[in-house]
Formats: sequence, structure tokens, C-alpha cells
Amino acid sequence: MAQITTPRPAQGTLELLPRQQVAFNRIADVVRRHFEAGGFLPLETPAFERTDVLLTKSGGETEKQVYFVQSTGGLANDREAVAAGDEVGLPDLALRFDLTVPMARFVAQHEGQLTFPFRRYQMQRVYRGERPQRGRFREFVQCDVDIIGKDTLSVRHDAEPPATMHAIFRELDFGPFTIHLNNRRLLRGFFRSVGITDEQQPLVLREVDKIDKRGVDWLREELTGERFGLAADVVDAVAGFVSTRTGSHAEALEVLAGLEGRDEELDAGVAELREVLEMLRHLGVPEGDYCVNLAIARGLDYYTGTVYETFLDEHPELGSVCSGGRYENLAGQYTRSSLPGVGMSIGLSRLFWQLMENGMVADEPSTVQVLVPLLDEALLPEALGLAAELRTAGLRVESVLEPAKLAKQFKHADRAGIRFVAVLGAQEVERGVVTVKDLQRGDQFEAERGDLAQALRVELAQPVAVRGD
Amino acid sequence: MAQITTPRPAQGTLELLPRQQVAFNRIADVVRRHFEAGGFLPLETPAFERTDVLLTKSGGETEKQVYFVQSTGGLANDREAVAAGDEVGLPDLALRFDLTVPMARFVAQHEGQLTFPFRRYQMQRVYRGERPQRGRFREFVQCDVDIIGKDTLSVRHDAEPPATMHAIFRELDFGPFTIHLNNRRLLRGFFRSVGITDEQQPLVLREVDKIDKRGVDWLREELTGERFGLAADVVDAVAGFVSTRTGSHAEALEVLAGLEGRDEELDAGVAELREVLEMLRHLGVPEGDYCVNLAIARGLDYYTGTVYETFLDEHPELGSVCSGGRYENLAGQYTRSSLPGVGMSIGLSRLFWQLMENGMVADEPSTVQVLVPLLDEALLPEALGLAAELRTAGLRVESVLEPAKLAKQFKHADRAGIRFVAVLGAQEVERGVVTVKDLQRGDQFEAERGDLAQALRVELAQPVAVRGD
Repeated sequence: MAQITTPRPAQGTLELLPRQQVAFNRIADVVRRHFEAGGFLPLETPAFERTDVLLTKSGGETEKQVYFVQSTGGLANDREAVAAGDEVGLPDLALRFDLTVPMARFVAQHEGQLTFPFRRYQMQRVYRGERPQRGRFREFVQCDVDIIGKDTLSVRHDAEPPATMHAIFRELDFGPFTIHLNNRRLLRGFFRSVGITDEQQPLVLREVDKIDKRGVDWLREELTGERFGLAADVVDAVAGFVSTRTGSHAEALEVLAGLEGRDEELDAGVAELREVLEMLRHLGVPEGDYCVNLAIARGLDYYTGTVYETFLDEHPELGSVCSGGRYENLAGQYTRSSLPGVGMSIGLSRLFWQLMENGMVADEPSTVQVLVPLLDEALLPEALGLAAELRTAGLRVESVLEPAKLAKQFKHADRAGIRFVAVLGAQEVERGVVTVKDLQRGDQFEAERGDLAQALRVELAQPVAVRGD
Repeated sequence: MAQITTPRPAQGTLELLPRQQVAFNRIADVVRRHFEAGGFLPLETPAFERTDVLLTKSGGETEKQVYFVQSTGGLANDREAVAAGDEVGLPDLALRFDLTVPMARFVAQHEGQLTFPFRRYQMQRVYRGERPQRGRFREFVQCDVDIIGKDTLSVRHDAEPPATMHAIFRELDFGPFTIHLNNRRLLRGFFRSVGITDEQQPLVLREVDKIDKRGVDWLREELTGERFGLAADVVDAVAGFVSTRTGSHAEALEVLAGLEGRDEELDAGVAELREVLEMLRHLGVPEGDYCVNLAIARGLDYYTGTVYETFLDEHPELGSVCSGGRYENLAGQYTRSSLPGVGMSIGLSRLFWQLMENGMVADEPSTVQVLVPLLDEALLPEALGLAAELRTAGLRVESVLEPAKLAKQFKHADRAGIRFVAVLGAQEVERGVVTVKDLQRGDQFEAERGDLAQALRVELAQPVAVRGD
């Protein structure tokens, strides 16, 4: 007998059963629809990039986690050279670790063929050679929107990614959520105004970034401690500043006004953030769903202006579910053109996994809406004809192709999560009708065969309580 | 100044500009919709698999083209060991080279959690370390449907993949096409009946598989030649057999009837193929769109019964655009359960590339349907409000955020492939209307602001001649 290899997927990947995948796809479809409504164009790039293109910036944590790709032949040559003691460089190809670097490469490459501002969305898998642990994935789906300007990009665009993300989280309905906004110029300017040097700023910013996790007291201790040695009153000013979260739109404007007049950079940041807030209001984002949070700094070095994080109000333990910001120069490593941009990103695999863990998403019913059972061998042509009619009318249909007891076929539909069973017995054929059992409502009805598709569509359009509720 | 790395993608990948990507996505959406209508469930698996799981079957051409994946740390350890002269095995992970092996692993792994027959579709990228050449890709999107039975699977299911694929190619409208059917049992039985041994059969089948490319004369020469040494009358029988292509459904049944009574295996194959043809008819597939083609053998060893290939009648040079077949045991390397199945596959990247090369697909208009220009700084709130209203009504909208000459904004819409420009000047605001310019039709109309979304939807639902036609 042939040897059996245990069937298991690569560690650190998220693979879903069909009805979980349906739930995942429903979310992904909402994301895609709003990305497109927001005026973003689809982009897909290959999973691997040339290593020299992918790793132009050196030293980042992410670059240390890159996955290299080698063909069978390439691997053999490489090993032969290593065994011979030759100097061997990195493999030619590597899997992307985010969607930003491939987009930067794409925009630089096709600059002359794109219209600017270039607005793209991208929903693809990215790869990180992380140590496997719960909720950390080596392959995960990321959903990004970005707007890239040629030479300049009005700060007004900074309101578009959060407006689009707002529409997404509102429709997904995981409970109340808030988009927290801040501005790196405002932050830097404020620090400068209290005497924190430009050299200290990135370090202090990094500590400030941890405040949501560790609290103000921890921050105060850290900053007065040996490493930073800041005066107590400076730390008090910083601590007061970074604990600022606004409520209403008016309060946000008031807080911003109160910061002005101390530093040029601070004022510039205030002006930008004010403009973004006004834009959000004009775009119809309810004021309860965004706030100014002066603690948001975002760890990544390349953000230069607006920064965002998004939290589910009732699930702060999930961390930010959608983040991003403004960057001054997207593709400096690939082109001399100046390409400022702004974007936000949802880590969809991680979010979905967290929602599953929290019981906040459930398996969906099957994509299949109708099962056409087979009661009797002689009825096969009729049953197939019915299935074909329903499919032509846009319904998703599974046919049973060998006769079996009806109870068994109902059980199959129930187990598979198929809502309707469209029974076509000899009597029904004679009378030109179909008996439909609705397993979700637990009732049944009869329809003229010609009216069936329409009747099912009407039923499907109405909300029903999910079984088990 | 920083060093510039030339921005280019990995060789042998298909990367599209936005309006090409829109065209690609339109096709992919049609494929997905019909896969779901056909009662197939979504499955997605990780791009990489454990090497021991992926490469259980050894020696295949495909396995020689596998791409191995190694993290930075894994690569370093590997090279250190090689340099030290240690025995080093293959890397732990490799990119999938098709969607069948990951599906087999998935089904074997989750056997107890799935309902059978398990019907899945999968539309994902696969990876092959091929030598780069025109139209051969190292990364390409494959679109598969398969139906997997537990222990048994009625041959009737063999009609479902081609019925679904038929619906897809009919809607895609690349011109007339024909699904060619054959059966491996019928082929083997026929060969046996003319005295070709079981050992010769796979070799003869492989030659037969080339007949569409090389012709009957070539086949006759090959089979009477040194390598096979078949008698002239046997070769004539084979040549006559493999040049059989049927026209109507009735002719197909007649041809099948004419083959019966010579060999048990042949009769079994005939009975299976007849059943599949009858099923296709009941499923409403027009008889002009399928045929029996006794030359179709499919190179792959694992097909055991029905086999299919699909050709665009007016573009035979494209080769088969959708192929597949029946296999007796999907996952023998992962489970002792018997899992017979049947499936078909579209190599979408390759097909799309061929269609582009042949001028059979064109860039689509932008996903963005409406541009809301900005005529005057003071009108920003109104313009943003209009954009938000249209988005809420389900339209895909780009807003201009800085005032510019209207002509420039029209030009932007035109270049980007955006059909409507919804102009809201001071006059329009006062009168509560919007002036819409339709760049596709080249006309304009005025609508009450509250009726605009509905008016645009009506316009979008109507077919328009594409510009340039």
C-alpha cells in the first residue's frame, strides 16, 4: 500500500472551511465594494518581486522576515556554489511582505501610463517569515487603499481613506467604532515646543506609541527616567498632551485651536488636521465615529503627516483594525519623481481570525441557495431542467443526481447550510408546480414552476433571523 | 542622492494596468458567478504548502518546476549547513504548482467536516519555475471546479463541470466555442480491441494527444515506425478512430453505438460518455456547443474516465481554453479513503494574455463611474456632499478636491475612462440640479439632485456602443 503523508497545511496560515470562507468572502466583498465606490482602481501585483527591488531599504524588521523564493534548479545551483565556497548572494526572488512596496514599484514603473492622483486598492496576500504564534500569520490578506499624487497631493485627500473605511466598518456592523486621527507634524511641533530635541523625537514618539497599551503612568516614568531624562514639567505637558482624546467635532476643533501659536510646525500640523476633520464632516462621516487622539503616532518611520488608527469601541483588545497615514515620498528608491501619498490598510486575515475567536462572526449559510433533490430516476430530466432554469435566473443551485429518500436529501441540505429544497415529484410535474421547503424559516410553500425563481428571489431579499438566534 | 533601483516586476509574471485589470476582473467575476450558480463552494488555500505534502508524487515534470520558499533565517541556516558539508534536505515550504494538490490535501484533512459530494471552486494563483517565454507564466491565475465523492461518485456529475464552463464561455462571448468530450476507458478499450497492448497504450495515447497539433499523417507514420511497429491496418483503425469528431447530439450517439460490442472496457466507456451527453442535453447545453472528439486523451496520467477540452471555434491557435476530466482517486497519498472526482480548469492568466494579444479583449472603462469636479473653492462642501450621496446610492465616484478649469477636469475623466462628469456649479446649486456630461455618449443632461443617482443608474443599465466603434 502506498505511504500516507499526513495532510496538513503550512504552519501559520489561515485556511477556512467552506462556510467560514463564505463569511470571509462576504466581508471581503463589502470591502471591495466600498473601495470601488470611493473611486479606487483595482491593482494586483505578483506575489514575488525581484529581491533587489523588494529590499532596497535595508535594516527594517520586516525585511528580516522576508521569504525568499528559488526554483528547483536555482536552489541546486545555489547549494553547489555554497558547497564550493563561492560568494553567493541572496536569491533573485522574494515574496512581498506588504502591498506598499509593490505599489511603489508599480507606480514608478508605469508613471507615464497612470492618471494622477492615482487611486488604487489592492486586496492580496502578503508573506512574513514570522515565528508562528496564535493570531500571527505567515500569510495573510491585506486590504489597502492609497492615493498617490505627482509632485503634490492636497491634504484634503487625507480624508478619503478614512471616509471609505468608515463606510466599510459601518456596513460590516461589528459594533461602534472610532477612527482616531492625529498628525505627525503636529506631534513633532509640539515636542519641539516643549524642548524635546529633534533627535529625541523619534524615540519619544516610539514610547508615546505604546501609551494605549501601557498607560500614562508608565510613560511618565519612562520619560523622566535615565534614558530620556526629561524634566517633570515637560513630562507632565507631554502626558497631558498625549492623553487628549476629543469627543465631538466642535471639541476637536477647540483642542486644535488651543495648541496653536507655539511652533510653526505644530501650527502646520494643526491646520492639516483641521482640514481633514472638516473634510470628514462634509463627506458625511458622523462626528461620533472619529476623534482626535494625540497619542496616535504610528511606529513606521515613513509617515509624515496625518496618521490614523481605528478601534472597535467595545473591543479595544483587538487593537487597531485599520491604520495608515500620509507619506511624503512613496517611491524615492525607484524614481526621482516626487510621489506623495496617503493610505489605509485592513489586515483582513488577522481581523477575521480575531472576530472568529471572539464569536463576532459565524459561519454563513452555503453560497448554494437551492437544492434540487431527485426523488425518482424517471424525474431526472425534469429535475435537471429545473436546476438549469433556476441557474439561468441567477440562483445558485445544487442538483442531486441519484435518487435517494427525501429525508436524506433534506438532511444533506440542512448540513450543508442550503436554505431551500425545491421538490419536484411526479405530482408536482403533472401540476406544473414546485414544492419549496425553506429550511431557514422552517416552512414550505408551493409555486408555479415559471414563477419559482422570482418567488425565491423575493424570499432571499427579505431578512430572516438566522437559525439558532 | 539616493541610489535608484530600476522598478521592474519579476520576469514571467502578468501584471496589468488598471483598465486592463478591470477587464480581467470582469471576466473573473463572470467565472465566479457561474461557479457559484453551479453549486460550487469557495475554497482558498495558502500559496505555499509543506514540501513533504506537496511533493508526495515524485518525478512529474511539474514537480521539477516547483518554487521553494525559505525565510531569511532558514536560508542562512541552510547555507551554513551546506558550507559545512552536511546533508541538507529540501526546504520545508514550496509554492503550489496547481490547485488540485492543495484541494486533495484539504479534502483529506477535513474529510469529517465536509459534506459529500464536495463541490468546490478555487480561483487563485499558482507558481511554476518555468523558463520565461512569451505566454508562459511563472505565476498565473487558475480557476478550477471539482466535485469529489466519498467512495463513489456517479458519472452523471461528469456533466456538471462542462455545463458550468459552458455558461461561462457563453456569457464571456469570445465567439463560438465547442466543448470536446472523450473517455479514457473508451480509448483504452478501443486500443485493446485492435490489439494494442496495455503497455503500449499510454505511449500511443501520448502520441494521439498530439494529433490536433500534428495531424493524422504524422500519427500514421509515428505508429507504423520503429518505435511502435504497429500493422498498417491497426494504424488505419486507430487513425480513423482518432479523427472522429461528431456534429449533432444524434450523430454523437450514433458514433458511440457503432463502437459497442467489441470490448468490455470500451463498452463501459461508451456507456459513461453516453450518459454524460444525455446529462448535458437535459442541462440545456445546446448540442452545437459540445461534441465527441475521440482524439482527446489529455496528457495527465491521473484521468481515468471522462476527459474534456474546450476550443474557441474561430481561434484554434489558442489551444484548449478549459480542460479537465475524471480521476478515480484524488488523495491516495493523504488518506486511505477513496475520493473519486471530476473537474475542469481555466488557465485565466494565459487565456487573458492570449485574448489581449489577439485584440479580443480591450481595456474597460474605469471602475469609477462618476467624476465630481470642483469649480470653485466655495463649492467644496456641496461637491463632497454630492459625491457622498452618490456613493451611498451605490455609485463609484471620484471627487476632485482642488478647483481647476472644467476643461482640465473633463480631460482627466476622459483619460481615466470615467464615463460621467457630474457638474455642480453655483447656478446648479441654486436651482437644486446637477448637469451631467456623458463622455461615452458625448451628450449631456440635467437632473434634479435628488433624482441624479437613479438617473445615472438607468443610464448605466443601458448598453452603449463603446467609443471608437
